[in-house]
Amino acid sequence: MAKPRKTPRPRAETPKGFRDYFGAEVTERADMLSKIVGVYHGYGFDALESSAVETVEALGKFLPDVDRPGGGVFAWQDEDEKWLALRYDLTAPLARVYAQHRNDLPTPYRRYAVGPVWRNEKPGPGRFRQFYQCDADTVGTASMAADAEICAMLADTLEAVGIERGDYVVRVNNRKVLNGVLEATGIPVDDIATRDAVLRTIDKFDKVGESGVRELLGKGRLDASGAYIDGVGLLEPQIEPVVGFLMSFSEVQRDLALEATRAFDEGDSERGEKLDRARHSVSPEFKDDPEIRNDVEARAIWTTRVLDHLQRIVGKSVIGAEGVEELREISDLLMAQDYHADRIIIDPSVVRGLGYYTGPVFEAELTFEILDEKGRPRQFGSVAGGGRYDDLVKRFTGQAVPATGVSIGVDRLLAALRDKGRTGGEAQGPVVVTVMDRDRMADYQAMVGDLRRAGIRAEVYLGNPKNFGNQMKYADRRGSPVAIIAGEDEFARDMVQIKDLILGAQIAENATLEEWKERPSQVEVPRAQLVESVREILSRQG
Amino acid sequence: MAKPRKTPRPRAETPKGFRDYFGAEVTERADMLSKIVGVYHGYGFDALESSAVETVEALGKFLPDVDRPGGGVFAWQDEDEKWLALRYDLTAPLARVYAQHRNDLPTPYRRYAVGPVWRNEKPGPGRFRQFYQCDADTVGTASMAADAEICAMLADTLEAVGIERGDYVVRVNNRKVLNGVLEATGIPVDDIATRDAVLRTIDKFDKVGESGVRELLGKGRLDASGAYIDGVGLLEPQIEPVVGFLMSFSEVQRDLALEATRAFDEGDSERGEKLDRARHSVSPEFKDDPEIRNDVEARAIWTTRVLDHLQRIVGKSVIGAEGVEELREISDLLMAQDYHADRIIIDPSVVRGLGYYTGPVFEAELTFEILDEKGRPRQFGSVAGGGRYDDLVKRFTGQAVPATGVSIGVDRLLAALRDKGRTGGEAQGPVVVTVMDRDRMADYQAMVGDLRRAGIRAEVYLGNPKNFGNQMKYADRRGSPVAIIAGEDEFARDMVQIKDLILGAQIAENATLEEWKERPSQVEVPRAQLVESVREILSRQG
Repeated sequence: MAKPRKTPRPRAETPKGFRDYFGAEVTERADMLSKIVGVYHGYGFDALESSAVETVEALGKFLPDVDRPGGGVFAWQDEDEKWLALRYDLTAPLARVYAQHRNDLPTPYRRYAVGPVWRNEKPGPGRFRQFYQCDADTVGTASMAADAEICAMLADTLEAVGIERGDYVVRVNNRKVLNGVLEATGIPVDDIATRDAVLRTIDKFDKVGESGVRELLGKGRLDASGAYIDGVGLLEPQIEPVVGFLMSFSEVQRDLALEATRAFDEGDSERGEKLDRARHSVSPEFKDDPEIRNDVEARAIWTTRVLDHLQRIVGKSVIGAEGVEELREISDLLMAQDYHADRIIIDPSVVRGLGYYTGPVFEAELTFEILDEKGRPRQFGSVAGGGRYDDLVKRFTGQAVPATGVSIGVDRLLAALRDKGRTGGEAQGPVVVTVMDRDRMADYQAMVGDLRRAGIRAEVYLGNPKNFGNQMKYADRRGSPVAIIAGEDEFARDMVQIKDLILGAQIAENATLEEWKERPSQVEVPRAQLVESVREILSRQG
Repeated sequence: MAKPRKTPRPRAETPKGFRDYFGAEVTERADMLSKIVGVYHGYGFDALESSAVETVEALGKFLPDVDRPGGGVFAWQDEDEKWLALRYDLTAPLARVYAQHRNDLPTPYRRYAVGPVWRNEKPGPGRFRQFYQCDADTVGTASMAADAEICAMLADTLEAVGIERGDYVVRVNNRKVLNGVLEATGIPVDDIATRDAVLRTIDKFDKVGESGVRELLGKGRLDASGAYIDGVGLLEPQIEPVVGFLMSFSEVQRDLALEATRAFDEGDSERGEKLDRARHSVSPEFKDDPEIRNDVEARAIWTTRVLDHLQRIVGKSVIGAEGVEELREISDLLMAQDYHADRIIIDPSVVRGLGYYTGPVFEAELTFEILDEKGRPRQFGSVAGGGRYDDLVKRFTGQAVPATGVSIGVDRLLAALRDKGRTGGEAQGPVVVTVMDRDRMADYQAMVGDLRRAGIRAEVYLGNPKNFGNQMKYADRRGSPVAIIAGEDEFARDMVQIKDLILGAQIAENATLEEWKERPSQVEVPRAQLVESVREILSRQG
């Protein structure tokens, strides 16, 4: 019994920055997530689903000392005056869960989690305030085997969802190596501002290259738009270790090329070729070359050389040497399991934004090209990232608990699969049984019942059946592959008409009037053969 | 670089009324939901995932005219002063989505949705402020075929998740019939308070029975605790139609019994037996009797008699007659598809709480007994409900849009499956490869790699390997079926030890010292036979 409404009608709108997902958008994501979770589970990771709502103090993004906390989360005050908020990632809740339940959980605790997270940020094109994350973490072990396992699992996961080997690479670095580089520059440990500025500059290496980094670490540089960017102000000897570190890749390649030439000159062509193969093993242009792809030794040489190179740059720093040693350990473990440089490589340029990483950091990048909004080809880029964070649980318990993990950007990975045509595409609509005679509803229902029992998605048209054209428009909008038609005449003869809508659409586009009249896309079959005939048409449609 | 922390440590706690779900709690629910969604999809329903956050005006529970809205939802003010809130169900968002996107959606629009909803209510034992719902609705058709379809789908869904036929029943009623009963009482249409009081009393019929309802509709009654409950204050002729309506079931049963007796007396035993079978067709004690179970005609007689009975009670009311006619239509459609009274019955006592239902209402009840917290047997009760609501979209558009749907109480249904042992039970943990020699980590990793490639869940122990007992405790805590052990000695001989932990636990409970020493639960096999041997043990464990 509706009361008389005096207020204006509400607007039918999602809040700003939120959206709805329909049909295949939902099911394709669910399919992908179930494949990811299948790999995680096979690696011994257990499911965890924490609540969407956490106390603000547990999330730890800000303190409730102002009337209404901002700081990137959606927050509100509960009845008992406690501030609550929607989780902004799946890592902060994991730290809370582990601290709360640590006596009941196995150690190490391997867990995966999938679900939406919320950010109270300015929305933009393709940037929403609710989106999915899919994480796997191992809590309670400092062993590099845990980090290696995460990297191997990430590679397996990408292949499981349909990214082919060669179309992705997992890049691994170590924060300790970066700290070693910073130590080599001589910047004091407590000069956090300068250290952060250096890290930010390292992160720009991909864009501005060697000379750009040199300028940005020194006096500054004119950017493409003509604006002058202030430099960090380091001196030449301080800049050198940073650039040497960033140039590791090309320097190791150059060294290998020189050595190969020397070997050829000395007549040792076997060695020369091996060194060349090592050099090519990380080059995208050789990624499909079977000679290089299958040369495990060549790729092992590459990795060893990169690690030795890093050792030379940061070796004098204790923390830096520790980082290189950790990378070597991860690399050895991965190689022993046949994860080589075609899937997982040591890459000194990986920084990862989050401040809390304390050791190895990883990033999964898709290496195939897509066209950007302006039609220019560019690499697809990062779809997952993570690393070791040893201080997160400490906030709660006071004791450091080592942990490492990875987070997959679900929507980005799904977009990549769509770009590559690796999803189901537009999901198929149901077979639509049309209604010619309202009094025969029970017979139409019996038809869909038969189809469903045979595993065929099917439904009766439930709108107003008066206008048959509307029924066909409906079937079209649903993406139906087949329509069933039966009126008085067909019932009298115990027959049904089966219309192949896919073929029908093709004929409608290309056919002459004569072809059209022959209606080869529609057949009449006995009612008893309905299921069989529909199944045949569906299998013909492929 | 952590800054020095001066604030006290945060408490590691979920907010009041929220909880975490671990391992099998998550995966069993996911399995059940995927089966439900499979049935919905087969019926032609499309997935919809709307955002967790809606504007308060779209949800329509309250108006933002106070500083902080209460009213059962979690709400907060966005930057632009708009009030936002977490959705409290999946129906209100559907109305918003349909109003917003109606020009792009097919009509009728069949959609399903699965996800958490949030209620800002006082939490209690087993009552949480975040829980799952799983809904299916058809928007845009007034056809009773849509309601019949929902009921059939609900029955199919329950069977798909593992509730056997006979262990559930879908009860169907119609609000219009209830309105017809109210009309028959002569209570004026605008006396909403009295009408609501009558509806609430009808809802108590299951508990207080015929005499209780008579008292509660009249002068009142002493309840079991000795407290006096005020009555609605109706007069005897006003009470009669309500009680007659509620007693439909037993009155129809009595009439059938009388008629059967008469038939037997007249020597027409065939007819007498048929009438008896009709009477028994809705009695739980005959539900496994094949003679009754397979007697479609008997169950059709039952349904016809109930509808005729209702017709007699409310037939003089136009709205009441319309309701009976709708029930008859639903019932005919369902019977034509072989959904009979063993699965779906017309039951006049179904009321359903929500005010917005306008026509058919349904409720799925599990009929098997469980033990309550005090060890007394009781019926499991309702796990799903729904009905027709024709006014929900109108709030936004001004135009009435007919709609009907059902919502499954996910956690209750899951609890029922657990009670019946129809879930996977405690999910099996991974095979644990123990670490006897830290330097052999790569070899241990290779073992789990081999196991995983064979589809066997497996992991290396990544905790501190010093204390072997801790490794076995870990395997126990994980529920591992098998542990692999290989130390220096085994590696030298290229062998591995495989320990059957399930058998081991059985022996540990019952074995003598001699039996224990023979260690039949542990075998040594060549490394090359690792996968094969583990697979054999797992299949033996079943």
